Amino acid sequence: MAEPRLLIEQKLESGAAIALDEAQARHAGTVLRLNVGDTLRMFNADDGEWRARIVEKSKRGMGATIFEFIRPARAAPDLDLLFAPVKRHATDLIVEKAAELGVRRIFPVTTQRTIAETVRVDRLSTIAREAAQQTERFDAPEIHEAQSLPRALDGWDISRRLIYADEAGDDANAPWGGDTGRALPIAEALGSGPEGSRSMALLIGPEGGFTMEERRMLRSLPYVVPVSLGPRILRAETAAIAALSVIQALWGDWRRA
Amino acid sequence: MAEPRLLIEQKLESGAAIALDEAQARHAGTVLRLNVGDTLRMFNADDGEWRARIVEKSKRGMGATIFEFIRPARAAPDLDLLFAPVKRHATDLIVEKAAELGVRRIFPVTTQRTIAETVRVDRLSTIAREAAQQTERFDAPEIHEAQSLPRALDGWDISRRLIYADEAGDDANAPWGGDTGRALPIAEALGSGPEGSRSMALLIGPEGGFTMEERRMLRSLPYVVPVSLGPRILRAETAAIAALSVIQALWGDWRRA
Repeated sequence: MAEPRLLIEQKLESGAAIALDEAQARHAGTVLRLNVGDTLRMFNADDGEWRARIVEKSKRGMGATIFEFIRPARAAPDLDLLFAPVKRHATDLIVEKAAELGVRRIFPVTTQRTIAETVRVDRLSTIAREAAQQTERFDAPEIHEAQSLPRALDGWDISRRLIYADEAGDDANAPWGGDTGRALPIAEALGSGPEGSRSMALLIGPEGGFTMEERRMLRSLPYVVPVSLGPRILRAETAAIAALSVIQALWGDWRRA
Repeated sequence: MAEPRLLIEQKLESGAAIALDEAQARHAGTVLRLNVGDTLRMFNADDGEWRARIVEKSKRGMGATIFEFIRPARAAPDLDLLFAPVKRHATDLIVEKAAELGVRRIFPVTTQRTIAETVRVDRLSTIAREAAQQTERFDAPEIHEAQSLPRALDGWDISRRLIYADEAGDDANAPWGGDTGRALPIAEALGSGPEGSRSMALLIGPEGGFTMEERRMLRSLPYVVPVSLGPRILRAETAAIAALSVIQALWGDWRRA
């Protein structure tokens, strides 16, 4: 098993004494089973990744000393995820996998067909952080409070492409493309890469899809790229993971630097 | 909610009386909450999709009569998945998502680093079947018994490309490609599509990755396409879902017919 990794907000530098906060110490003790003398990695997006040794362990917390620089932080693509909250288990999965797939910011959005369960930002932040720690990235996705789709799009930076998974619905025989036809297949719609800005976002709807009104509104926006994810019906969490993967493969940092 | 769908092995045709077996009747009664008079869809890969009405419900089973043809079956890409079994929850997720993503046959394979929990074919078949029913495909993935990786490759049809997710490991600074360098990024390795045969398979290793011995063996095989899934460490189930998505987007039926 790889040496454990903890995201630490404090400044990381050689010789620094790091006090783990209560949640971190609990995680380090019970999940990672770290004891005095064990080494672990600490990282953040400013200071990169360092190696530290646990020097103190008590009921109240844990202390570690940094002794080795491992590598500088690497910037990840500027990729946001907007998704309509679904059942708790599926929402958790979306957040965990978005963290693994390199999403920077996560915005729960309510749509006309969203059957909203309450979104608990603190809980999702913990999931995102734990997934980020295991995945060799240097930050954890920011989780934002839920807001309505129109509000999320209000003041949108038009240089940020919004890739939106548009259901074929009953229109499987409709022509491809245009204002009313089926969304182009995702690989074709993304093509060989975005022109200009590399900022991007993915929008995934609820299980029931977007309403016609929402689809028309989305398609009228100049920064929106509607895409299709094939002939099978995907659950919301599958659509999110699938589209993020194709985005990273074609537009993101799965390509050669 | 979409009209429920059941995969039925019996011949489907207009007017046919269909007796649901015990497991199907239980699923239809308790999960789908179907009662006498309700309609549902029945499908299989030979006869396509039909609409039926429940005409009988008792403690022992359920009976339905087919009354309407909906659509013919559509062939899916010839895509297999070979994966090293992981923890039960993750294995279940791989099978469910592979069904949604159009995999035809699923082969659990044990590798040198596989920490094998027992693979229960009947349990995974149920998961695959239920996911297939919800996803508008016409068949369910076949689940095969676990076997060793060398055995799974023994007698391999060399026209079937085997896309294999090759970990960068500690070699993140190694050159791209060649016999010893990093595997090419997945979009680059897959390029604009397979020449000749459209048969393909994906191989996903265990959490600890493949051993160097396995990597050398795999890379020496003429039908193997090693690919990289970016700079972050993905859990096995994430790698499986991500790679299947990119494969369907670039080589499979997410493209225009």
